[in-house]
Amino acid sequence: MSDLLLTDCRLATMVPGGAPFGAAEDGAVLVEGGRIVWAGPRAEAPVDKPVETHRLGGRWVTPGLIDCHTHLVFGGDRSGEFEQRLNGASYEDIARAGGGIVSTMTATRAASEETLYASALTRLAGLKATGVTTVEIKSGYGLDRDSELKMLRTARRIGREAGVRVRTSYLGLHAVPPEHRANRAAYVDKAVDDILLAAHAEGLVDAVDAYCEPIAFSVGEVGRLFDKARALGLPVKLHADQLSDGGGAALAAKYKALSADHVEHTTEAGVKAMAEAGVVAVLLPGAFLMLRETQPPPVELLRRHGVGMAVATDCNPGTSPVASMTAALNLACVQFRLTPEEALAGATRVAAQALGLGEEAGTIEAGKAADLAVWDVERPAELCYWLGKPLLHRRYLAGAAA
Amino acid sequence: MSDLLLTDCRLATMVPGGAPFGAAEDGAVLVEGGRIVWAGPRAEAPVDKPVETHRLGGRWVTPGLIDCHTHLVFGGDRSGEFEQRLNGASYEDIARAGGGIVSTMTATRAASEETLYASALTRLAGLKATGVTTVEIKSGYGLDRDSELKMLRTARRIGREAGVRVRTSYLGLHAVPPEHRANRAAYVDKAVDDILLAAHAEGLVDAVDAYCEPIAFSVGEVGRLFDKARALGLPVKLHADQLSDGGGAALAAKYKALSADHVEHTTEAGVKAMAEAGVVAVLLPGAFLMLRETQPPPVELLRRHGVGMAVATDCNPGTSPVASMTAALNLACVQFRLTPEEALAGATRVAAQALGLGEEAGTIEAGKAADLAVWDVERPAELCYWLGKPLLHRRYLAGAAA
Ligand SMILES: [Zn+2]
Ligand SMILES: [Zn+2]
Repeated sequence: MSDLLLTDCRLATMVPGGAPFGAAEDGAVLVEGGRIVWAGPRAEAPVDKPVETHRLGGRWVTPGLIDCHTHLVFGGDRSGEFEQRLNGASYEDIARAGGGIVSTMTATRAASEETLYASALTRLAGLKATGVTTVEIKSGYGLDRDSELKMLRTARRIGREAGVRVRTSYLGLHAVPPEHRANRAAYVDKAVDDILLAAHAEGLVDAVDAYCEPIAFSVGEVGRLFDKARALGLPVKLHADQLSDGGGAALAAKYKALSADHVEHTTEAGVKAMAEAGVVAVLLPGAFLMLRETQPPPVELLRRHGVGMAVATDCNPGTSPVASMTAALNLACVQFRLTPEEALAGATRVAAQALGLGEEAGTIEAGKAADLAVWDVERPAELCYWLGKPLLHRRYLAGAAA
Repeated sequence: MSDLLLTDCRLATMVPGGAPFGAAEDGAVLVEGGRIVWAGPRAEAPVDKPVETHRLGGRWVTPGLIDCHTHLVFGGDRSGEFEQRLNGASYEDIARAGGGIVSTMTATRAASEETLYASALTRLAGLKATGVTTVEIKSGYGLDRDSELKMLRTARRIGREAGVRVRTSYLGLHAVPPEHRANRAAYVDKAVDDILLAAHAEGLVDAVDAYCEPIAFSVGEVGRLFDKARALGLPVKLHADQLSDGGGAALAAKYKALSADHVEHTTEAGVKAMAEAGVVAVLLPGAFLMLRETQPPPVELLRRHGVGMAVATDCNPGTSPVASMTAALNLACVQFRLTPEEALAGATRVAAQALGLGEEAGTIEAGKAADLAVWDVERPAELCYWLGKPLLHRRYLAGAAA
């Protein structure tokens, strides 16, 4: 006897290989102990006396959306800089005035864990309202031990208390903090040998991430970090080839990373390496829009070589102040020409892979967590078509309406 | 004695000439009979014993936002076409299969007024959730008398029942319906001499609009319509120069239109004519994004010649499925490089002008309707900076919390 039957609904299971969106019209889902025990066409459902039945009025049900790349926890915001730039200030003007990532670092260091938590919830509200049940959250604005740990603890607290699953990524190699500018090697040492170990010892790290770009960290520096991650048994992921082809995709492949993210400038060789190593490409169309980039990621190459494409908000104060998962879907379709099915897979099944949760989430099928989103739409493509229309009817997290 | 005092708030009055955003830190607003009777710094507020006091926790208050260009009422949607295009179908394929504006016309003609109303409310929800208190709604998907009247009646009903002010625009010259393709002159005659008169007689028309573009209606055809509008004492506005420079801005200026909308391809001569005639430019960044246009409107020229710039969603099923006013603000800043103050003026004071409501709405000052939006932001620029973050605390419509 199961706990819950969802019925009178249409399922976009996102299980590949069958109908588009893995669709089952007139579907049903059986939930037990927070997990899906059966999903499919209602006519084929096993005989069962569920404790509770939810009739969903013919609505579409998808896997709960997974935002697999965010910087959700940070102090302050950068709306002031956004305004200054539009009023004519140059990036140099802003940097001289203490702006850019350093301003977020300063605000994050100064903020209490309570403040960080409360402000992250205001952004999380936008993600939850657009169907998100799992969110990845990176550190990387603390850039010293205490502040990095504070960010990761805040992320864990969100996972415990805020109605969403959280996967953390330690992003110590995000920027060199001002106090180490004269000796960046010392910062890399500290990020690798001190902060990562401390964070890992506290159970705060689900994956290790880095920003590989000429303006950030080199392939060699990131390799140092990834070697340590490997020694600790932690999976890695990488901000790769966003602004230039810096060999990030190949580096991610070498370490069998869960994902290489951004990848606007990744070449065919990099794409092939990702395909062979099973690295997911995480596409971040919010940053592409906000930075007014002109070179989209190589979607055609990614398709041709069979690299999974995830889609995420990249929610962050500097380059992607985006707090809506459906906005990310829309922008991925409009700007990068993903099909709605590709985009929705990128926010479910493939996003789960990008977080190492492929067995746990991302599709509606037996054995997976009963994380679901129920939508007021007539077809799944509407989730990608609308910008800013409220579409969510209800979320389920581990089988509980949320 | 006034009805309501709003206090413990920061005002972005949007009254020009003073501080940026017309800001009054530590402000107060007095409301009587649905109108603002006083607004300004709290220390200068008149002595008064209001019936009710709302303390707003230091939040920012702006004029209620005004979405001055929408096609909010329509049947069906075009998410299917959106998906087909992304799956590789050409515009010609889609047109041959009965797609494009004709599919919306067909669905709109087939829909009951009740269905049109209910579906419009789902989009209006996104606008209200982003602070909109006044929305302009166009006809133009009926393209026969009964269906155009049905659309306009639906718009009026929204204004009566849905918690928002509505201004209607009759857009009979939106497209030539299929049954008139062999004789477009007959359709223009009907739109001008029959449908407009019937709609006006029923009190359904606040303004008259047309789509002036080589693929739609010529300057001569629109002139016929505008002459009739003038004879009826109705103001006009125009979809102008969106895809090419078709002389739309000059035409709008000739008829002293309230606004010329889109204006991506308007030349300096057109801008000058608009300036002299007091025509507002309505910028529609959602359509720009969705159509992947590359030529933004001539913002620098509009500034230089002092043409007011409004910002609107253009909410419509074909080219701008956008149902968030803050998304429109964000896109106007990111894509068109409006400053946050320009964008917010474009959704308040200037939008009111574009609807002929300059005396009635769009700023927080004595004499105007008490239509207000209260926001969870630290500075007004946040309204433009975030994409998809829920920012609205509360709306007031005619002084009533809504
Ligand atoms: Zn990132
Ligand atoms: Zn329009």
